[in-house]
Amino acid sequence: MRRDEFAFIDDLLRPLARGAAGALGLDDDAALLDPPADRQLVVAKDALVLGVHAREDDPPETIGRKLLRRNLSDLAAMGAEPLAYLTALCLPRTLEDAWIDAFIAGLAEDQQDFGLHLLGGDTVATPGPFSASLTILGTVPPGAALRRRGAQPGDDLWVSGTLGEAALGLRILEGLAVPDEDAGPFIQRYRLPQPRLQLGVALRGLAHAVIDVSDGLVQDLERLCRASGVGARIELARLPVRDVTRQIPGWREAVLAGGDDYELLFAAPKAARGRLSEIAAGLALPLARIGTVQEQREVVVLDEEGRPLAPARTGWRHF
Amino acid sequence: MRRDEFAFIDDLLRPLARGAAGALGLDDDAALLDPPADRQLVVAKDALVLGVHAREDDPPETIGRKLLRRNLSDLAAMGAEPLAYLTALCLPRTLEDAWIDAFIAGLAEDQQDFGLHLLGGDTVATPGPFSASLTILGTVPPGAALRRRGAQPGDDLWVSGTLGEAALGLRILEGLAVPDEDAGPFIQRYRLPQPRLQLGVALRGLAHAVIDVSDGLVQDLERLCRASGVGARIELARLPVRDVTRQIPGWREAVLAGGDDYELLFAAPKAARGRLSEIAAGLALPLARIGTVQEQREVVVLDEEGRPLAPARTGWRHF
Repeated sequence: MRRDEFAFIDDLLRPLARGAAGALGLDDDAALLDPPADRQLVVAKDALVLGVHAREDDPPETIGRKLLRRNLSDLAAMGAEPLAYLTALCLPRTLEDAWIDAFIAGLAEDQQDFGLHLLGGDTVATPGPFSASLTILGTVPPGAALRRRGAQPGDDLWVSGTLGEAALGLRILEGLAVPDEDAGPFIQRYRLPQPRLQLGVALRGLAHAVIDVSDGLVQDLERLCRASGVGARIELARLPVRDVTRQIPGWREAVLAGGDDYELLFAAPKAARGRLSEIAAGLALPLARIGTVQEQREVVVLDEEGRPLAPARTGWRHF
Repeated sequence: MRRDEFAFIDDLLRPLARGAAGALGLDDDAALLDPPADRQLVVAKDALVLGVHAREDDPPETIGRKLLRRNLSDLAAMGAEPLAYLTALCLPRTLEDAWIDAFIAGLAEDQQDFGLHLLGGDTVATPGPFSASLTILGTVPPGAALRRRGAQPGDDLWVSGTLGEAALGLRILEGLAVPDEDAGPFIQRYRLPQPRLQLGVALRGLAHAVIDVSDGLVQDLERLCRASGVGARIELARLPVRDVTRQIPGWREAVLAGGDDYELLFAAPKAARGRLSEIAAGLALPLARIGTVQEQREVVVLDEEGRPLAPARTGWRHF
């Protein structure tokens, strides 16, 4: 294969690699990395296809940032700190220069905010829609990585921030009518999730099991439970949901099964409650205690009257 | 975004992660990696789009292997040894199960042959053609990585193996007529390049500059020269070209500008000639001395009569 017509993109990407010695100016066949002494590496890779994982009318600057933030959220769930990233970009020939400029400008802004650099990658042409994958490298102290497994019966279940807004933001973009003044924050939440990196670091040695809520609270809770060999019982009334969210029809489904929240869901022993309050205050990030880990391997959601919600009503699958 | 309908692919991929402790069974948000002590990490990432970088009638088992081998060739050019890889797969909904099974079977075969494991990744749906990216991790002793820069005037220029066959293999698939008994090896060379990993390791501390020939000999030589701040003069008569190749119309273009060879092109001091002969013999891999590095910053190809070939005749760009 000949190097394709998009090789000029390398010139656009090069500034993103400035400051990363191992990127070798994107001029070599691969990047070189000195792993920080006495750390384990954490590696994740996520892909997005325009029209599937992002809307064609999403601003291009948020599309790159969201892809990066999804990967950063994976690091957060492992308690890791970001180090560097690589991209593979598949560009349709019809893509406008301004679009790709904005996409890259978004990455530039976020990599500065989150303290990491581009290390390398590949750019190719595609007859299909724009797509991209991003590989992220992070580090943790040896043995300190948070895992999905490890939740124990009797543990509290916690979730950070608030739930449901991203999924409703997507529904608003798809045509759901809400008062104009309410729409913006929901849409923003959908387009620019906030990876909970500082919380992930703070949970090291404290949480028994952690996952980020990317596919919906119940589904990700099921994953955490399955990995830990336990079940869970959570209470709808305890879920962190903004008042403005509760005004919107379908908010329960959005909260329980909507996904795209990128909050951290974690199990921690009761003894950690005091420390978790301090962490929440220190990070100015609410942490809601939403339920309990149980031995019986099922995930139960209790409604406001304490009755189990039927799975069918919330759209999640049982395991 | 909801986890898409292709989550079942994770089950197909999981066997590829067996034996890689840090892959965590592909069950966590990210993979964990203990960087080998006293090594630098080498990281590369390549993408392919079906119909652009592979033909739709290529056997699916070779498509995954070629993507992996392109990345392995990047490691070879850095003198690195493979450690692990991650994939991002974008699957059209129309893709047949047998296709993806064969794609993954190809990866399974090659990861065994080359001694590395799947560490993680992502699988998503796409309305476009099948595409994939692969991130590879390798290691080198500190400071031992081979680079594109470093070629010095007076250095010999060398290339491994033989050139032009892969590009002609592609042309044969596109309809170029050759005797039936000749077609197979050319096509095989196009579909399954042989990354020169052992040669890369052997060149550590010996070669001044290395690149893998992926986009065509002259273009990649230009890159090596540009990175090194030098020029080069090579002789067509010295290029390693099989007799059967020379029978095919257009073989010169294929050899000079065809690409997909995945041989190593490198500069080494004259004093290394003896050692390089030993290496070639030890690896049973021919190494051809094709020219010389010069101070003047241009790449000149001399034809069989010692006259400079006009760039236009071979399709390469000058720098």
